[in-house]
Amino acid sequence: MQSIVVLAGGVGGAKFVGGLVGELARRHPDASDRPAVKVIVNTGDDMWLTGLRVCPDLDSIMYALAGVNDAERGWGRAGESSRVSGELAAYGVGWPWFTLGDLDLGTHIARTALLRDGLTLTEATARLGARWHAGAGLPATLLPMSDDPVETHVRVTIDGDDALLHFEEWWVRLRAGIPAREFVQVGVESARPTPEVLAAVAAADLVLLAPSNPVVSIGTILGVPGMREALAAAPAPIVGVSPIIAGAAVRGMADSCLAAIGVETSALGVAGHYGARSTGGVLDAWLVAEEDAAAVPQVHALGIRSAAVPLWMRDAATSTALAGAALDAAGRQ
Amino acid sequence: MQSIVVLAGGVGGAKFVGGLVGELARRHPDASDRPAVKVIVNTGDDMWLTGLRVCPDLDSIMYALAGVNDAERGWGRAGESSRVSGELAAYGVGWPWFTLGDLDLGTHIARTALLRDGLTLTEATARLGARWHAGAGLPATLLPMSDDPVETHVRVTIDGDDALLHFEEWWVRLRAGIPAREFVQVGVESARPTPEVLAAVAAADLVLLAPSNPVVSIGTILGVPGMREALAAAPAPIVGVSPIIAGAAVRGMADSCLAAIGVETSALGVAGHYGARSTGGVLDAWLVAEEDAAAVPQVHALGIRSAAVPLWMRDAATSTALAGAALDAAGRQ
Repeated sequence: MQSIVVLAGGVGGAKFVGGLVGELARRHPDASDRPAVKVIVNTGDDMWLTGLRVCPDLDSIMYALAGVNDAERGWGRAGESSRVSGELAAYGVGWPWFTLGDLDLGTHIARTALLRDGLTLTEATARLGARWHAGAGLPATLLPMSDDPVETHVRVTIDGDDALLHFEEWWVRLRAGIPAREFVQVGVESARPTPEVLAAVAAADLVLLAPSNPVVSIGTILGVPGMREALAAAPAPIVGVSPIIAGAAVRGMADSCLAAIGVETSALGVAGHYGARSTGGVLDAWLVAEEDAAAVPQVHALGIRSAAVPLWMRDAATSTALAGAALDAAGRQ
Repeated sequence: MQSIVVLAGGVGGAKFVGGLVGELARRHPDASDRPAVKVIVNTGDDMWLTGLRVCPDLDSIMYALAGVNDAERGWGRAGESSRVSGELAAYGVGWPWFTLGDLDLGTHIARTALLRDGLTLTEATARLGARWHAGAGLPATLLPMSDDPVETHVRVTIDGDDALLHFEEWWVRLRAGIPAREFVQVGVESARPTPEVLAAVAAADLVLLAPSNPVVSIGTILGVPGMREALAAAPAPIVGVSPIIAGAAVRGMADSCLAAIGVETSALGVAGHYGARSTGGVLDAWLVAEEDAAAVPQVHALGIRSAAVPLWMRDAATSTALAGAALDAAGRQ
């Protein structure tokens, strides 16, 4: 196996990719034998905020792979401060509920400068990644799903009126406390997967779907025109990992998102939503939690191979074990 | 007297305007009787740096009038840190020799966001100024000389080759250590003074030229097409304060700039460079340092009234005294 592609959102994706990188290093002590990992990252949460391009999912994965993420808080940089945000609030500029840490702002400023210099988001992401591990770069290649802007907006009803909010406003500010009626991918119709993404999928020996939000992370990636076709044509098996354990989202508020699109919050529900590749969907195999072992035959009945494995990523060891299970599931193909 | 206009550059201008505001408060304890101060600020040092609009002179004056400047260092905010700049350097983005402090970056980010929202620089400057003194705003109105970008570049010879550097690169990075052959105001031919600037000059009861750099601060302001005509038509007397004491620039490296345009570094030389308003120049009166009292009759001979006064702005008291001398010089008109 030479090349593994992972589709991923932010924090859950970061943990999973971190586990995968760790497991591959364990299985292949000689780096020259180690499969390359390319992560196709959701950019639907990206936004312009106070003139800066903020890419939450790309940054979550970058920080995790660089070993500088705040694992306790679950997002952003460790040892963060908010000197600049204090100034922005005093000037009355920006979103006061969306604190940008000082170290994190360094990333946003650098990215914005590179984009304004004419680099694509893919090129800028590579430049940002190159600084880590004393210049050796990240142990995985991060590929934005598209260089074209796609922004997830959420249709809600506020005081009887229809409103369309940026995803982060609904998610972070309102904590998904108002029911989403619809997710709108602004710009998606004219977006395309990057050449780097298409080449990675075509060359992959294994494609993994991280246990990220199936609607606004993986779903957004799959919604880029051309992405489903690329996956359908991929020679590699596609193995997904359930983001739902025993009827509850592992992290975040995926149930609010699933409810909005009429999908049951269960390992089986999400498997059915992704669908079997043999019937026009994207999955060859689907890993569910041990708590959901009863769903395995039902997933099989959808035309998707399935197995129950320990799914909680509590720390490096459990994340590594889950990645190992995903690799083994592919091997059993 | 109801309205005073000051033409000013950065640090020297900030001290002088601070002294003026202090002296006016002393002379007019009742704020409703106090003349309004409008400062026409050089924007020729402005630049796009890592995607952010940096306006050194506007910021120096704003910080000084807000009472948050670093008086000891002479530039930037007091209590500054450089967490973000450390990140930018690690990413290899920006000018490593031009450190942007965290608090200062808050200003640049807020300004850039406002500009990208469609505000003019004049409007953005007003918005930034409004936060200070617990929302009461600054004790003077800061008016960029133009809303059109004008950037001072410096023509030098490096290793026998002609090179055009941004002013800040020559000034801050090279400490003006390479002779300037020419100053080029990029964009100046299509720039215009703002309506706010023209209205302020037309309505002023007194126009003061701060002891700022006569070439790259005051000279840049005077170089905006229409500015000299506006000053020529101003009903108010125009009183300048020499930035040169005993043949040396009070601050910075004004002599390097004066040498490049063939003007002697002396109180008389700069007076002659500005010229008498009666002969097409801008000065009605010129304050020189006590050390340069011998120049007073020579300045008179140019058609410019002159007086020798204590010119060193060492602290608030001496800055206030100098502003008082300028007000008195106007009164003797």
